[in-house]
Amino acid sequence: MLRTHNCGELRLEHAGQQVTLCGWVDTYRDHKGVLFVDLRDRYGKTQVVFSPNPQLSEPNEQDERLMATARSLRSEYVLRVKGIVERRPEGTENTKLATGQIEVRAWDCEILNRSLTPPFMPNTQDLPGEDVRLKYRYLDLRRPQMQQTLLLRHRMIKLMRDYSDSKGFIEVETPMLGRSTPEGARDYLVPSRVQKGSFYALPQSPQLYKQILMVAGYDRYVQIARCFRDEDLRADRQPEFTQLDLEMSFVEANDVMAVVEGLMERLFREVLGIPLTLPLPRMTYDEAMERFGHDAPDLRFAMELIDITDIARQCDFRVFREAAENGRRVRGINASGAAPGYSRKNLDDLTEWLKQDFGVKGLVWFKVEADGKLSSPTAKNFSESHLQRIAERLAARPGDLLLFVADAFDVTCRALYGLRKMFGAELRLYDPSAMNLSWVIEFPMFAVDEETGGWTAMHHPFTSPRPQDRHLLRENPAKCRAQAYDLVLNGSEVGGGTIRIHDQELQQEVFRLIGLDADRARDRFGFLLEALQYGAPPHGGIALGVDRLVAIFAGADSIRDCIAFPKTQRAVDLMTGAPGEVDAKQLKELGIRGEK
Amino acid sequence: MLRTHNCGELRLEHAGQQVTLCGWVDTYRDHKGVLFVDLRDRYGKTQVVFSPNPQLSEPNEQDERLMATARSLRSEYVLRVKGIVERRPEGTENTKLATGQIEVRAWDCEILNRSLTPPFMPNTQDLPGEDVRLKYRYLDLRRPQMQQTLLLRHRMIKLMRDYSDSKGFIEVETPMLGRSTPEGARDYLVPSRVQKGSFYALPQSPQLYKQILMVAGYDRYVQIARCFRDEDLRADRQPEFTQLDLEMSFVEANDVMAVVEGLMERLFREVLGIPLTLPLPRMTYDEAMERFGHDAPDLRFAMELIDITDIARQCDFRVFREAAENGRRVRGINASGAAPGYSRKNLDDLTEWLKQDFGVKGLVWFKVEADGKLSSPTAKNFSESHLQRIAERLAARPGDLLLFVADAFDVTCRALYGLRKMFGAELRLYDPSAMNLSWVIEFPMFAVDEETGGWTAMHHPFTSPRPQDRHLLRENPAKCRAQAYDLVLNGSEVGGGTIRIHDQELQQEVFRLIGLDADRARDRFGFLLEALQYGAPPHGGIALGVDRLVAIFAGADSIRDCIAFPKTQRAVDLMTGAPGEVDAKQLKELGIRGEK
Repeated sequence: MLRTHNCGELRLEHAGQQVTLCGWVDTYRDHKGVLFVDLRDRYGKTQVVFSPNPQLSEPNEQDERLMATARSLRSEYVLRVKGIVERRPEGTENTKLATGQIEVRAWDCEILNRSLTPPFMPNTQDLPGEDVRLKYRYLDLRRPQMQQTLLLRHRMIKLMRDYSDSKGFIEVETPMLGRSTPEGARDYLVPSRVQKGSFYALPQSPQLYKQILMVAGYDRYVQIARCFRDEDLRADRQPEFTQLDLEMSFVEANDVMAVVEGLMERLFREVLGIPLTLPLPRMTYDEAMERFGHDAPDLRFAMELIDITDIARQCDFRVFREAAENGRRVRGINASGAAPGYSRKNLDDLTEWLKQDFGVKGLVWFKVEADGKLSSPTAKNFSESHLQRIAERLAARPGDLLLFVADAFDVTCRALYGLRKMFGAELRLYDPSAMNLSWVIEFPMFAVDEETGGWTAMHHPFTSPRPQDRHLLRENPAKCRAQAYDLVLNGSEVGGGTIRIHDQELQQEVFRLIGLDADRARDRFGFLLEALQYGAPPHGGIALGVDRLVAIFAGADSIRDCIAFPKTQRAVDLMTGAPGEVDAKQLKELGIRGEK
Repeated sequence: MLRTHNCGELRLEHAGQQVTLCGWVDTYRDHKGVLFVDLRDRYGKTQVVFSPNPQLSEPNEQDERLMATARSLRSEYVLRVKGIVERRPEGTENTKLATGQIEVRAWDCEILNRSLTPPFMPNTQDLPGEDVRLKYRYLDLRRPQMQQTLLLRHRMIKLMRDYSDSKGFIEVETPMLGRSTPEGARDYLVPSRVQKGSFYALPQSPQLYKQILMVAGYDRYVQIARCFRDEDLRADRQPEFTQLDLEMSFVEANDVMAVVEGLMERLFREVLGIPLTLPLPRMTYDEAMERFGHDAPDLRFAMELIDITDIARQCDFRVFREAAENGRRVRGINASGAAPGYSRKNLDDLTEWLKQDFGVKGLVWFKVEADGKLSSPTAKNFSESHLQRIAERLAARPGDLLLFVADAFDVTCRALYGLRKMFGAELRLYDPSAMNLSWVIEFPMFAVDEETGGWTAMHHPFTSPRPQDRHLLRENPAKCRAQAYDLVLNGSEVGGGTIRIHDQELQQEVFRLIGLDADRARDRFGFLLEALQYGAPPHGGIALGVDRLVAIFAGADSIRDCIAFPKTQRAVDLMTGAPGEVDAKQLKELGIRGEK
């Protein structure tokens, strides 16, 4: 090693020792001819002092060379410094720095590499735009905050591996070059050179391979798996992402959930120092939609959705009454204490946002006055007693703002979820550092495919219905509930799992329901259907979103801050320039060309 | 869990306990109406006994149902059995089985899944061809040997992660969707949908990203990295493969080698129970080529290459003399004791093989007779004294077979390496279970590119020359030696590493030498060249081939037996059918089409 110690480890006990440090010039001060350099590496910072030797009556050559080198130093130069560890003079200790009791008096300094003036400094408080950070990622990654986040990521993943190993899970690497199954999201394709016209697909998840591993008797499989989706990237998605993927045989949903809970307990305790009480709370999908309008509710605060359809049905306000009479729902929330902060103009803007983004037809709101009465332009359409019943239902107190939507159930869910999320943050209804982890279970098997109007699998088509719901596959698929469980942290889905289908006929039946006839099913999933006929055990598993989990643990705004080399929303790597042009020869060998 | 125990854990101490087991029917015997089933899972086998309750004078309904179920069982059915653990009757214990002291007397049996008659049984000794094994991989993976190998792989990788973590390495995930740099092997390309006509490339290694991580100050990086090469697959290569990839800052070659040696010491000790003596032996590239004709010599046996060019120069045999006079080399090996087994015909065949596969012009051989004299059709061209000198040089003893090639140095290397390998195995010169690990160091920086006649990088163009050889870059590139180190296990290269270039100008110089002018260098590696200007530390690393290491540890014939879902030599996954056809719509979205 070119060093004897790193920049974070010297303490008072090292005083008097000769040491060699390597690192980057973090800061640089000239104090009356004495030069102070904070030398930085991943482990910390150490103050290095360059001063002419006070014991010499006249400077010697070595001394002069050293000071000349020191004066030539600039930010981000890479140094190798030899010196002696000394206690800092009294009053100059830096208690914020782990090495702040000492400094290293240099007697030799080698510049291992120079640096141009960086477009931004790793120790800046004033970050440039994300594009600049991504282009010069090697500078951005020098920032202590980025280093802490990637270290946190390493620790979390190490803990996941240790935990799963201790529970008997085997890590098995599944292929990256797989087969395209264009259900779900878009695949990234890889042209085959050997079989021109054929393509591999990068995996959206190792789903089928891990099921095959269960058929093969591996009993407990785990992988920190890279997955790919060629989607138009929403705010915080990446074309490649990482999931903790696991699968177990001879289990029921509770067994998988218990394994995940054990992992979460360790992660929370060892990484965050937060004790988790197990088992985690569970809520059915139906309850989550009813109470929070979303299948991944943020349970750090209440502000539940309140149904007033029964009151609406009896009231004089035509919009409410007709909605109730026509099977739609009238639901609202109480944004407690929000009334004074919301002008008529603000509320008009809010209404416009809900119309634009959630397709509601309108928003009905009331402010709760000092006397407890509800006031609003719409209030005149209601009788006093109806207003009073509404106020009571929502536990209204003076200063509250009540907001209602009358619409199809799913529209009320989306709109009120949006309002709840907004007001929750705005009214500071929760501690942003609080952590709330829970399960949502018993998802529907199917959702309506908006394109075709037919059924589509809510999780994926390998999900098993609850045994007691199997008859509903034929009788009423909409009511059929899956053995599915999502892990929700602070209103984000951080994991989703299901018990899988291990019965070949049931699998065929589900394929048929989602519009895959026998031929297409065999074409795409023939190997799975075949494997199910050779002794497939009951099995189930889960996948946890590692990027998202790390982001929440790190308190990061974006998963891009938790990935060493992320891509932009246009799926571009600004540092390397990927994707880029390739040689015509490469394309010719693959037998493909761009379309005219 | 559907079981209380797995099939490998019941012992005498469990006798009398009620248990529930799940597993596969491995074998099935009907012994006078009593049915014996070996139930199998990943953990072992347990004998389950089905017999009518002897305490009942007449069979009851439950008993009859159980026996009917038992009689319907077939191989590979998946069962859930409830029963009581009983000591096996004396004389029927199976000492080969960990559970062989007990059996489980079943009182309930649920068939969790049936199985068609498999194309081959997991417990067969008589394996079908590899194509059948790959197509029904879920059956092949049930074989205990495959399970042991994949468990071994898991343990080895876990140990690699634990070791590197304990040494302060951070695992950082580098992108799979990168930029194509068509140096070296062929890239797998991924068309971009967002930027039509642009392509990502799957990484051949994380080389540049890990160097960038060093520039970013991560100090110690590790990753078990999936890598891709679109090559025409040689006997034992895979299009995607796994390497243990690591990189360190502020190090010299010895530091990287010491870290790897520490890992190897643990792997050998903990996995194989073999103590390794450190430091490992080292040999320079030049010495390896001289003594063994190869840069990854198998040191489990001697049979070194012996040079007789000096004798050849003086002898009467024209072929030898002219070779020696024209700067070629005459070298040979002593296949000790091989003479009696090699007829004239055998030796003609051997000569033909060497001509075909290694391009030699001929093979000169001598048998050592009982009186110590050399005999062969060529012997008459040599004087007695020259023959005697040759015999002495090769320490010939009666029964030995001496084989010589007179050719350009590299041809003699290849041919004699081939002969040495063949005879080493044929003459059983080593214990196949022996392990021999060593380093080969000081590789040349450059080799001649056979296509262009110019220089090409022997390792990769980011490799640093030895400091004392830097002047040779201009003066004599052929003589310039790299700070490179390959790890060799039993004649296989299992790892290769180098100290990297951290100086931008040196990097440019090496690029120029291998024919990359400034423009092309900037186009392909601009971000690296830029990063080197912002404070790049000295750094180096290594990549170990995980598939190969596991194969050697497992004693497997092929790396395909160490990968859960490998591809054939045509890069096909016979189970899923990848690569496959894709929808026209998918290609249209990507803006590509197959060439006419």
